[in-house]
Amino acid sequence: MTQSYLNEFKPPQRVLMGPGPSSVHPRVLQAMTLPILGHLDPQFFQVMDDVCDMLRLVLHTENFMTVPLSSTGTGAMEAACANVLERGDVAIVCRNGFFGVRLADIAQRCGAEVFVVDSPWGKPVDVKALERELKKHPKVKMVGVVHGETSTGVLTPLPEITALAHRYGALVVVDAVTTLGGHEMQMDQWGVDVVYGATQKCLGAPPGLAPISFGPRAMEVLKARKSDVQSFYFNMKGLETYWNETRAYHHTSPISMTYALRESLRMMMEEGIDRRIRRHARVAAALRAGLEALGLQLLADPGYRLNPLTTVVAPTGMEETAVRKRLLQEHSLEIGGGLGDLKGKVWRIGLMGESAREINVFALLSGLEQILPTLGYEVACGASLSAAQRALVEFDAAG
Amino acid sequence: MTQSYLNEFKPPQRVLMGPGPSSVHPRVLQAMTLPILGHLDPQFFQVMDDVCDMLRLVLHTENFMTVPLSSTGTGAMEAACANVLERGDVAIVCRNGFFGVRLADIAQRCGAEVFVVDSPWGKPVDVKALERELKKHPKVKMVGVVHGETSTGVLTPLPEITALAHRYGALVVVDAVTTLGGHEMQMDQWGVDVVYGATQKCLGAPPGLAPISFGPRAMEVLKARKSDVQSFYFNMKGLETYWNETRAYHHTSPISMTYALRESLRMMMEEGIDRRIRRHARVAAALRAGLEALGLQLLADPGYRLNPLTTVVAPTGMEETAVRKRLLQEHSLEIGGGLGDLKGKVWRIGLMGESAREINVFALLSGLEQILPTLGYEVACGASLSAAQRALVEFDAAG
Repeated sequence: MTQSYLNEFKPPQRVLMGPGPSSVHPRVLQAMTLPILGHLDPQFFQVMDDVCDMLRLVLHTENFMTVPLSSTGTGAMEAACANVLERGDVAIVCRNGFFGVRLADIAQRCGAEVFVVDSPWGKPVDVKALERELKKHPKVKMVGVVHGETSTGVLTPLPEITALAHRYGALVVVDAVTTLGGHEMQMDQWGVDVVYGATQKCLGAPPGLAPISFGPRAMEVLKARKSDVQSFYFNMKGLETYWNETRAYHHTSPISMTYALRESLRMMMEEGIDRRIRRHARVAAALRAGLEALGLQLLADPGYRLNPLTTVVAPTGMEETAVRKRLLQEHSLEIGGGLGDLKGKVWRIGLMGESAREINVFALLSGLEQILPTLGYEVACGASLSAAQRALVEFDAAG
Repeated sequence: MTQSYLNEFKPPQRVLMGPGPSSVHPRVLQAMTLPILGHLDPQFFQVMDDVCDMLRLVLHTENFMTVPLSSTGTGAMEAACANVLERGDVAIVCRNGFFGVRLADIAQRCGAEVFVVDSPWGKPVDVKALERELKKHPKVKMVGVVHGETSTGVLTPLPEITALAHRYGALVVVDAVTTLGGHEMQMDQWGVDVVYGATQKCLGAPPGLAPISFGPRAMEVLKARKSDVQSFYFNMKGLETYWNETRAYHHTSPISMTYALRESLRMMMEEGIDRRIRRHARVAAALRAGLEALGLQLLADPGYRLNPLTTVVAPTGMEETAVRKRLLQEHSLEIGGGLGDLKGKVWRIGLMGESAREINVFALLSGLEQILPTLGYEVACGASLSAAQRALVEFDAAG
């Protein structure tokens, strides 16, 4: 037995450019060293209120039930479905990537009859196909859609989809795990009924909490339920009595993680939400320009590319894991591989939260320029860095 | 709008003597400031393995699936039930407090037909009544029992219950949220099939993760399931492929919290598991002696008292919240109130993990001696502190 657990753990400093977690600012890490408070301490209630206030600003919503769940984003996906759906309800889930597939799976586990609208991975949700499906199911209760598909790097515009779904009387549940804090989210204006995200991407906190918000239509559906929510842990009616003035015990809140989320949101308020989003757009433009200068092909359709996550097709015949392994070992830089159907075929490069910095773009491009030629893929030395630099300058000039 | 979220948050240093969270050692808080790693980083895999190795030592089990869930203890309660139970299965839940009631509720939400064995709050589980119930339901799949009832301060001995349940072919699911790290847990020797706990009590980490372990009989039941587990997030078959050598993505692990758990378990290894348990017994003896010297009545039956949590009956006619409020405001010391049927009637005093220190016993008794007389309850000055001190000396003399 090695008993490695007896040693002090000394993790290396990584440049985190995968699909999340992203790098976390020292101020946010430091917030977790603050003294623990009880989950029913009045001083902790203030922390809770602060976090909810700031989440509402990020989502542009007035929804009272805008809270961090004590889980990761996948737990929030489950919370959204479990609260909205009852056994036998009809749900339509738009699947244009791995997380759309997961959303349909979870809706099914909640007892719903699930119909899917599939689009090729790399394309946005097919709104016309969604309308055809809606017409077939007059009693549809929920339409599920992924705002930013972390598996493909595709952003799906929401306003058209919410308007359409509402015409058919359906609630719209939106997965904003990768977009929250990195793309605009006008929850109320766009008519999104339920939205959820995660802390470890563009919000800049460690993984472990998942913001979720329920709008008035969704709250009415919850109140009109005939059966118990199958999850006690994620039951919003139970959680509401902890987050509202009742302050009733539901489960013990993750105190230190809530401190971290508060500090990361506070840093976003200091930066400005719009500026944070613009920072993500700016570095993404540089990254794309650099990757294209390397002759690499981006997976997502040009008009629908996510800023926090860029998906690149690995060159034909190249063992993509070899590149990732060398980036990690030689440059202490992490990027992600493909999920599901895209496994072994793409790289997923994140520029999220604290990681969305131009130095990271240059670090990655430099690393690729050093590694790719040794694997038989020729590159013009420095060309990708110049292209990235030009894109930054052009972005700033465009204003 | 006050915008209090823009201010730096400066929590007071509390003496945490409620039902959890307990105080966290600076070493454990500091571990959360270590650089974030990706959840698929080989260096993080080592952290995961270390945590699992140490959890197995604490539980005295060889079970491979001994892992921290990305939730609090209530989530683990749900994970246990959702994995073991299918729609229409029969479950018997022993209810001798608030968390037994919750366990029955959750089993029901998982679609099981639930029968209950009720005991008065303050008493251990009634084994004879359990046997009568088992005889009535030949197809029972699960018996659920709370090892340490956090609502009443009662410890229920397990070996007799597991032997009995196994004679009737049932799996035994044990809630060890309050006992894990504070009382002995011989999972394999006692034949416990599923056990779960939480990080924020006797393990000495912040709230946010929940260790769980599935034994061989439970794993067989999982493999023989006919239907999908209704929870994707807590589905052990999905989680297994992340925690075993496959290392497949399931959800993004709470990295910083896992660092904290590793460090808190490492501190337990340094102290020694038996010594940690003995420390809990020692300070609990002092606390009980002090409370009884104040003339207060302990709720739990003498032979079945929890060490990490002591439940005291508030004096008749006294507004119990006033005492708690003043302890918090004047002494920065938190104790808990009653839950459910015991609301307004008892105080719950925790001595868990880092909080299980004799200085905390003296701090609380001193505070009570100062506050109680002002509310019309006379005490002999210093008597409770002397009694606690004598109990410590006697405990040490008994060896």
